[in-house]
Amino acid sequence: MALVTAQMSVSLDGFFSGPNDIDAGFHRVTRWVIDTLAWRERLGFEGGESNANSELIAELQAATGAYVMGRRMFDVGEVPWGDNPPFRAPVLVVTHRAREPLSREGGTTFTFVTDGIQSAIEQARTAANGKDVAISGGGDLLRQVIRAGLLDQLELHISPVLIGDGMRLFDRADHDAVELSPTRTVHTPGVTHIRYKVNGPSTLAIDDRGRGASGAALARRADLP
Amino acid sequence: MALVTAQMSVSLDGFFSGPNDIDAGFHRVTRWVIDTLAWRERLGFEGGESNANSELIAELQAATGAYVMGRRMFDVGEVPWGDNPPFRAPVLVVTHRAREPLSREGGTTFTFVTDGIQSAIEQARTAANGKDVAISGGGDLLRQVIRAGLLDQLELHISPVLIGDGMRLFDRADHDAVELSPTRTVHTPGVTHIRYKVNGPSTLAIDDRGRGASGAALARRADLP
Repeated sequence: MALVTAQMSVSLDGFFSGPNDIDAGFHRVTRWVIDTLAWRERLGFEGGESNANSELIAELQAATGAYVMGRRMFDVGEVPWGDNPPFRAPVLVVTHRAREPLSREGGTTFTFVTDGIQSAIEQARTAANGKDVAISGGGDLLRQVIRAGLLDQLELHISPVLIGDGMRLFDRADHDAVELSPTRTVHTPGVTHIRYKVNGPSTLAIDDRGRGASGAALARRADLP
Repeated sequence: MALVTAQMSVSLDGFFSGPNDIDAGFHRVTRWVIDTLAWRERLGFEGGESNANSELIAELQAATGAYVMGRRMFDVGEVPWGDNPPFRAPVLVVTHRAREPLSREGGTTFTFVTDGIQSAIEQARTAANGKDVAISGGGDLLRQVIRAGLLDQLELHISPVLIGDGMRLFDRADHDAVELSPTRTVHTPGVTHIRYKVNGPSTLAIDDRGRGASGAALARRADLP
């Protein structure tokens, strides 16, 4: 069964870039990707390391049959991606502005979807031809997909740096809690990859398992890691 | 060489509790601790699981010779910890209010330090007698210790849940980036433990490794995980 997946590189303090789109914070957080052979080959760049990170990128590229992205991300990327964008697959762009589809070299097509995220994901599922649908981002689209209960799998790539400020993947939000299960962890010297299955919404509750049989006081923060 | 360490349980969206001190969000995030045999034994509670999480708690208890905590955390804990607090070691409380030391059963002593964090850590180091000094928190104290360059090792226990709102371990902060290195990852079904060595401050820079030899446009977010 094909999945709706998402991947995001984040700093240890939860930012996927600094305060601007493409800035020093973004470069630091995504450095592990830039250095991989798999990513550089896809972009036609020289060099790159063949390691666990590169295998992970290659795995992602192979598993994904179509992408869904937000309009703002498309606007930022349209020109720099050029004639041969790195997706090599159908890309569904969620937007309020209708536009003719755009065909590029290498198999990348951009289709503009004006009737919402769920429709974009359904169209991507058909276009993916049995492979996974990847939510490319940005953060806002990804959060909406999670809240709508449409995401099956989330993989975070945690770069070991505190950048202090920027764009948060998970900002404060007024919604039910969402439970996940970690299904895979890949530990490398420069980044930690954690893959999660998304289980769905849950209601948090006070629980008294930290209260002894004697009725001893509830455990307090200081004695808990 | 003894280390200055810190541990914190956080949700996947970066909160160590919900909006209040001891609330449903806090209980969810720290559930993995409450369920361990090692923690329950220390508190005198029945039950508990003997698993990788419990080993990790036991390891932490054995490695730590003294604790440093903020005044607010002490205020919240003083009464519920009771006559036999779970630390069983010297605890240095960073505060502005002088107070006589407090001796409890089981080896826990609270000493109130009014001349700052660095002094508290130095006193804890002496008291720890060759073992590690653990920063107990709260979040504010931990952030100050990191910013002051006084933390050697940070271990995060990432609970697989988005709680949406609460107290953030890492809030927005106007400081240099801080680089870390992941040194150990322990994957369990209910929580992911990542241990970091803290390397120190660094200045983030735009880098052009994502730019091809041909001068191709800098890689854009959408084609990066």
